[in-house]
Amino acid sequence: MPFTVSAYAARSATEPLAPYQVERRDVGELDVRIDIKFSGICHSDIHTARSEWGASNYPVVVGHEIAGVVAEVGSGVTKFAVGDRVGVGCMVDSCRECESCRAGNEQYCSKGNTGTYNSIDAEGKVTQGGYAQAIVVTEDFVLRIPDSLELDVAAPLLCAGITSYSPLRHWNAGPGKKVAVIGLGGLGHMAVQLAHAMGAEVTVLSQSLKKQEDGLKLGATHYYATSDPETFQQLGSTFDLIVNTVSAKLDMGAYLALLKVDGTLVNVGAPDEPLELNAFALITGRRSWAGSNIGGIAETQEMLDFCAEHRLGSEIEVIPAGKINEAYERVLASDVRYRFVIDTSTL
Amino acid sequence: MPFTVSAYAARSATEPLAPYQVERRDVGELDVRIDIKFSGICHSDIHTARSEWGASNYPVVVGHEIAGVVAEVGSGVTKFAVGDRVGVGCMVDSCRECESCRAGNEQYCSKGNTGTYNSIDAEGKVTQGGYAQAIVVTEDFVLRIPDSLELDVAAPLLCAGITSYSPLRHWNAGPGKKVAVIGLGGLGHMAVQLAHAMGAEVTVLSQSLKKQEDGLKLGATHYYATSDPETFQQLGSTFDLIVNTVSAKLDMGAYLALLKVDGTLVNVGAPDEPLELNAFALITGRRSWAGSNIGGIAETQEMLDFCAEHRLGSEIEVIPAGKINEAYERVLASDVRYRFVIDTSTL
Repeated sequence: MPFTVSAYAARSATEPLAPYQVERRDVGELDVRIDIKFSGICHSDIHTARSEWGASNYPVVVGHEIAGVVAEVGSGVTKFAVGDRVGVGCMVDSCRECESCRAGNEQYCSKGNTGTYNSIDAEGKVTQGGYAQAIVVTEDFVLRIPDSLELDVAAPLLCAGITSYSPLRHWNAGPGKKVAVIGLGGLGHMAVQLAHAMGAEVTVLSQSLKKQEDGLKLGATHYYATSDPETFQQLGSTFDLIVNTVSAKLDMGAYLALLKVDGTLVNVGAPDEPLELNAFALITGRRSWAGSNIGGIAETQEMLDFCAEHRLGSEIEVIPAGKINEAYERVLASDVRYRFVIDTSTL
Repeated sequence: MPFTVSAYAARSATEPLAPYQVERRDVGELDVRIDIKFSGICHSDIHTARSEWGASNYPVVVGHEIAGVVAEVGSGVTKFAVGDRVGVGCMVDSCRECESCRAGNEQYCSKGNTGTYNSIDAEGKVTQGGYAQAIVVTEDFVLRIPDSLELDVAAPLLCAGITSYSPLRHWNAGPGKKVAVIGLGGLGHMAVQLAHAMGAEVTVLSQSLKKQEDGLKLGATHYYATSDPETFQQLGSTFDLIVNTVSAKLDMGAYLALLKVDGTLVNVGAPDEPLELNAFALITGRRSWAGSNIGGIAETQEMLDFCAEHRLGSEIEVIPAGKINEAYERVLASDVRYRFVIDTSTL
């Protein structure tokens, strides 16, 4: 039987989020019902709540950084048992048949993966996300959270963590490699920790030196202010890999010039407006400008295990549901170090 | 003793090229004097002759697709002997010490390679290129032209050939790979032949179907007109690699959408003005937009040997020196199939 649970929803693009009872489907044969304990606040949540990425289906319950405990499993579930500590990220399903899905890149499913919220699932229903007390998800899209990771600290790993981890792995961050991270926010503070743990030498490129102390503590060796033109002169042809976590309109040519020959700059976020680039910036050093979208399911599990092994997690500020709207304003003002996490017991 | 030879030079950005006596240095210990037989006309020559890439040093003798015969060697030369059939491309020197040079990527020399023309050489002199009856070049930057390649057909390989070959090799064009070539001009007609010879399935993306017959004869399996919007709908997520030989301002997002997940679009040319791109085009399929500049010296030799082995060469129209200025206008009007080559005996 479908059931309802307490949640917070946006009812329109302009109203603040407010309490809502969201319906969840009956636990099917391969489903897991998760009692959500914590739900991270991602900038994507705000974009969707406010229809900034196209018209959303209201009411919409956002949230795709979900950590909780298994409360019920379907008769065919083999991977999880009641009481297991689990997480759900940005996807809850995919076609599972295309080349990308078979390669473990469900995020690039040729039919489009099913997003955790504001997406249409296999039954034709709109998915509803993690600002809620429970969710039902097919077991193949549920992650195991290692015992040594606290659930609140683990929640943001499901989006911010994997979004940083995947490009670092794909473009071989590791010993002997110089990696720069543009922006020290929710994504950036994970990218710094992860790249450092992988053995790379990490540099933060941030607008100002305000968060320098944090950056060095998180594992960066160098920290530069991009508001200082000297930075760009000093760091020409320095990095093997640059992870751009900033969604603002940057001077891409200036950043690409910081790459060594054969280096890659990877965008994990993007502004709505187009970026400009003179292709000579690429040609002169066989440089690449690439993009990366979250990560696959197996890779997300790998990331969680990596974080547990290296004792990494997100730096968080836990808030009650009543502060979600205020938190949104603070996210927009970059006034969070480094991720808000909702205590869902307060919903 | 330095000596002079007949050449054609631009005396200003606005005058037509005209006869000129160019000075060549004495043949040093490691130098090779080459009697130039043929010299290809590259679009870069026009840009430089007309100061379109910054102010050129006039008078300037352009030309960096040089094929000829060794006429004299320095006392320390070991690689070449008088009578050898040789070529010179876009570079005549580099620092030879930096990481790129040591890796055989002299084109990305950290101190900047010495261009064959309009560049400053180790002695502080401005280099003069191939629209001339002879040139003196250090042996390490001279290429061997295999016997089975005619010198006129070989000349354009030294720039158009290697510029196409290098990215195809670097991004692994080969059996099982789908490669698209944007533009069927001097570079494009080489890229099609080379990618086909490497075993890839080749598609030409050209403004119109005017050159379709040529494209298929050169080795393409498919040929599409980019003026037809259907092309972009039909070919979404199709290619592993796209080589963009066009220097016009294209809709990069539309072309990047033709790449499979993890595919790469490589610019080998670039318009002066910046290109616009919404980074979502990269993110949604972990796609890369890259650039590539000619190729290294060892790789250029490999390309020449590959062309000989596969009996490939440039499609050319041989012209006398008196037709250089007319040829420039025809290059700008895309009225050449596919490369003009100057018979230097007419200089």
